[in-house]
Amino acid sequence: MACEKKRLAELAALVQGELVGDPEVLIGGVADFDSAVAGEITFVADLKRGARLAECKASAIIVPFAVTEISGPAIRVKNPYLAVAHIHALFVAEPFVATGVDARAVVGQDCHIPAEVAISPLVSLGNRVRLGRRVTLHSGVVVYDDAVIGDDVVLYANVTIGHHCHIGNRVIIHSGAVIGSDGFGYATDGNGRHVKRPQVGMVQIDDDVEIGANACIDRATFGKTWVKRGAKIDNLVQLGHNVMIGEDALLVAQVGMAGSTTTGNNVVLGGQVGVGGHIHLGDRVMVAAMSGVHNNLEPGTIVAGIPAIPHKTWLRSSAAYAKLPEMVRELRELRRQVAELSEAINPGEDDNLGNNE
Amino acid sequence: MACEKKRLAELAALVQGELVGDPEVLIGGVADFDSAVAGEITFVADLKRGARLAECKASAIIVPFAVTEISGPAIRVKNPYLAVAHIHALFVAEPFVATGVDARAVVGQDCHIPAEVAISPLVSLGNRVRLGRRVTLHSGVVVYDDAVIGDDVVLYANVTIGHHCHIGNRVIIHSGAVIGSDGFGYATDGNGRHVKRPQVGMVQIDDDVEIGANACIDRATFGKTWVKRGAKIDNLVQLGHNVMIGEDALLVAQVGMAGSTTTGNNVVLGGQVGVGGHIHLGDRVMVAAMSGVHNNLEPGTIVAGIPAIPHKTWLRSSAAYAKLPEMVRELRELRRQVAELSEAINPGEDDNLGNNE
Amino acid sequence: MACEKKRLAELAALVQGELVGDPEVLIGGVADFDSAVAGEITFVADLKRGARLAECKASAIIVPFAVTEISGPAIRVKNPYLAVAHIHALFVAEPFVATGVDARAVVGQDCHIPAEVAISPLVSLGNRVRLGRRVTLHSGVVVYDDAVIGDDVVLYANVTIGHHCHIGNRVIIHSGAVIGSDGFGYATDGNGRHVKRPQVGMVQIDDDVEIGANACIDRATFGKTWVKRGAKIDNLVQLGHNVMIGEDALLVAQVGMAGSTTTGNNVVLGGQVGVGGHIHLGDRVMVAAMSGVHNNLEPGTIVAGIPAIPHKTWLRSSAAYAKLPEMVRELRELRRQVAELSEAINPGEDDNLGNNE
Repeated sequence: MACEKKRLAELAALVQGELVGDPEVLIGGVADFDSAVAGEITFVADLKRGARLAECKASAIIVPFAVTEISGPAIRVKNPYLAVAHIHALFVAEPFVATGVDARAVVGQDCHIPAEVAISPLVSLGNRVRLGRRVTLHSGVVVYDDAVIGDDVVLYANVTIGHHCHIGNRVIIHSGAVIGSDGFGYATDGNGRHVKRPQVGMVQIDDDVEIGANACIDRATFGKTWVKRGAKIDNLVQLGHNVMIGEDALLVAQVGMAGSTTTGNNVVLGGQVGVGGHIHLGDRVMVAAMSGVHNNLEPGTIVAGIPAIPHKTWLRSSAAYAKLPEMVRELRELRRQVAELSEAINPGEDDNLGNNE
Repeated sequence: MACEKKRLAELAALVQGELVGDPEVLIGGVADFDSAVAGEITFVADLKRGARLAECKASAIIVPFAVTEISGPAIRVKNPYLAVAHIHALFVAEPFVATGVDARAVVGQDCHIPAEVAISPLVSLGNRVRLGRRVTLHSGVVVYDDAVIGDDVVLYANVTIGHHCHIGNRVIIHSGAVIGSDGFGYATDGNGRHVKRPQVGMVQIDDDVEIGANACIDRATFGKTWVKRGAKIDNLVQLGHNVMIGEDALLVAQVGMAGSTTTGNNVVLGGQVGVGGHIHLGDRVMVAAMSGVHNNLEPGTIVAGIPAIPHKTWLRSSAAYAKLPEMVRELRELRRQVAELSEAINPGEDDNLGNNE
Repeated sequence: MACEKKRLAELAALVQGELVGDPEVLIGGVADFDSAVAGEITFVADLKRGARLAECKASAIIVPFAVTEISGPAIRVKNPYLAVAHIHALFVAEPFVATGVDARAVVGQDCHIPAEVAISPLVSLGNRVRLGRRVTLHSGVVVYDDAVIGDDVVLYANVTIGHHCHIGNRVIIHSGAVIGSDGFGYATDGNGRHVKRPQVGMVQIDDDVEIGANACIDRATFGKTWVKRGAKIDNLVQLGHNVMIGEDALLVAQVGMAGSTTTGNNVVLGGQVGVGGHIHLGDRVMVAAMSGVHNNLEPGTIVAGIPAIPHKTWLRSSAAYAKLPEMVRELRELRRQVAELSEAINPGEDDNLGNNE
């Protein structure tokens, strides 16, 4: 464990929870319910697990306020996930160790590199790169000319940061992610040949953003592609040129967003969602996994489907979809019955009774 | 060719096939039907190509048992693809050449590295990494601290193996794949900000697994993300934290699987399939390409669509989908006809005859 | 700016446009409408922005012919995007600087490397690699044995080129892309185990192709996977073994194409499109984003949906989809009404009037 043991009372105070039982219990780490042992704290997030509390071998447990019949040691909180995130972060936090710039790293000219960094072997920095304090660059990271990287940033193995891109503070970028590749922009000539449009903008990643493995964020054609503070972007996500992602967004794995699309704050896009170009998703928009959005969405809208429709409608439409073959049969049968009724009422007349079309 | 020529009789015995014609024909390699020349063996997998057997320039041919009118040299087998896979493997197998650890590779402290390995220049190994025998690591591979890699493993260029991850024997991982990136786990506070949940588990890849280029497999939040023996995972697949993939699964390119989902053995997921979190797919489940699965599936189920429904239903529903505009028209016309009939029977009454709603 | 200033008349001639106003205006660069300043040229692509021409601070503007009321300085053209692409390319073009092979790059045996190249530190070339003139290889690039790379090629950081692959002239490949990973090919034995089929073909990329970040193009089982002249492939695209992409194709991000599928020229596949294996898409086929194609498509076809249907039908079917719950209700109501009418005409008879089924 990276930090010393903590008294349960301290942990309860940290997460503004209600202490139940002995405040002096010493906790040295966090584990999940089934593997936690003495000396650790664990948690249950819902009441279903509540029935299994007796099985718990941890020295303490974090439970939602709804769990009332507990004798402790425990911490009752509003949001167990949030409490455990804070407590776990406390235990796993490692002090930054400044190893400097390894001799086997490549450093260009006129770079600004503080003493307090950890640059691994086989990292490559271009010219005029500016690094913040406590930056950690793992092997295989390539940072191009004129990129700027903030404080406390971690770039994992084989991450690429393109020229002139700006990375904020406390940003985490996982292995293989590419920030600042050229946008996909061409103009097509009279012969059907595609002429590349120079992509001269950059990418700006603001503070506290996390970007997943092998994700791709293209630089802008002009200006910037922009991921705002606190947005979390999962593996293999694709953001086109000039996209702007609002604060505290969640983009689940394999989302693709076409060029020049922007979002408000706190949007949530499920896995494999596709969003067309040049549209805007308002604050708090939620898009169900695998949906395709082609139009602007008002703040707070929840949608699903390809093309995306209101989520509640989609639930009913998708249920009906499975019954389409039956509907086709019923429609055919109704046509037959109506024709028979018509014949019974007006014998000999045209089947297509009264049809003026 | 990596191995010497083989007698046709030897090859027939290898694949338990029925030899047709001269057993002494010497074969030096495998090629496909259209490019095979003298000295090579080729194959036809179905009867359609059977009609073209006369065009074949190879010295021998592998055919399914259903091909009866063949004078050879040939090998008749149950499954030509399987036979050719075994025979081709024989010809392309290269003896392992232990080049040791190149001086331009980076090796951390306290690693366990047998003499019989091939570590290329520009590979980076962390501390306490354990390698098996006959491991091949290509340039740009980064293996983090405490990772364990089995015998006969090949990691292609720019693969990343995260700390504490375990890779079994005979595993092949293609370029750019990332094993052990952090899972996408956050707890959201009252201000809508996402607090990172530490991802302290690992990834375990069992024997005989193959993982495609730029695929991503996240480490577990707690415990392990687990890919079991013989599973084959294609390019750009995403597996979330705590996913468990059963033995001999086939996951085609760009599949995405959300956290904590598990599968039985021999499942087949088509390209771009999405699977939601915290569900289970039973043994032998098959999911058609581009489908989305949100619920548990019983063993042997075959599904398609978003959301996924039984494949047979989906085939009919998707056919009906193209006729939806026509159904809308027919429904409108039926309403009109029924209203007219109603008026004919009960003149002057409300159109909406007898509707109690 | 990479090139000296140009007279507006020169630029107009370059793009065969109609000069409006002072031909002697000097232009030093290109910027977008909102950020352009004196000394730069900008453009409007459509008439909507035409109304804002007075706000433009650029020294000249490129407009479509449809904009007639303009006093200049301006260039009127048929296709402003195309004109600006050509003019912008002129300004950003940098002369190639041959830095040779950095001492920290790794070069195998018997490579053919002209003097006029720029090979960065931490590049790895295998044996017998052949490079063209003015090739630029960025850090982390790995080129395997026997690969051939044409003139004026740029491979960005961490690109992998597999053994025996051929890259044409003026090809650009963005960071993390993998060319020549093994195709996903197995034969399954009687126990459900997957036996790897050797993938002994290669990948051929023709002239003027651009390939996006973290895209994957598998080598052929036999023969070649082939991307023809001028095709543009976006980030995270997956091409299976033996795929053939025709000239001047556009494959938007995250497209996936299964093995042995081929396309004609000038096809356009929208983002996240999936294409099944062993089919052919004719010239100029267009597939809407997120669609799934399972069948051959005739030249010029425009399709959408999963499975893909004619785009016009899909527009109406997808509109009807949102009304499915309503259709279910209407159908139920019609059944009730028809039963009532039937009872009114033939009291006491079976509801299911005349149904012979």
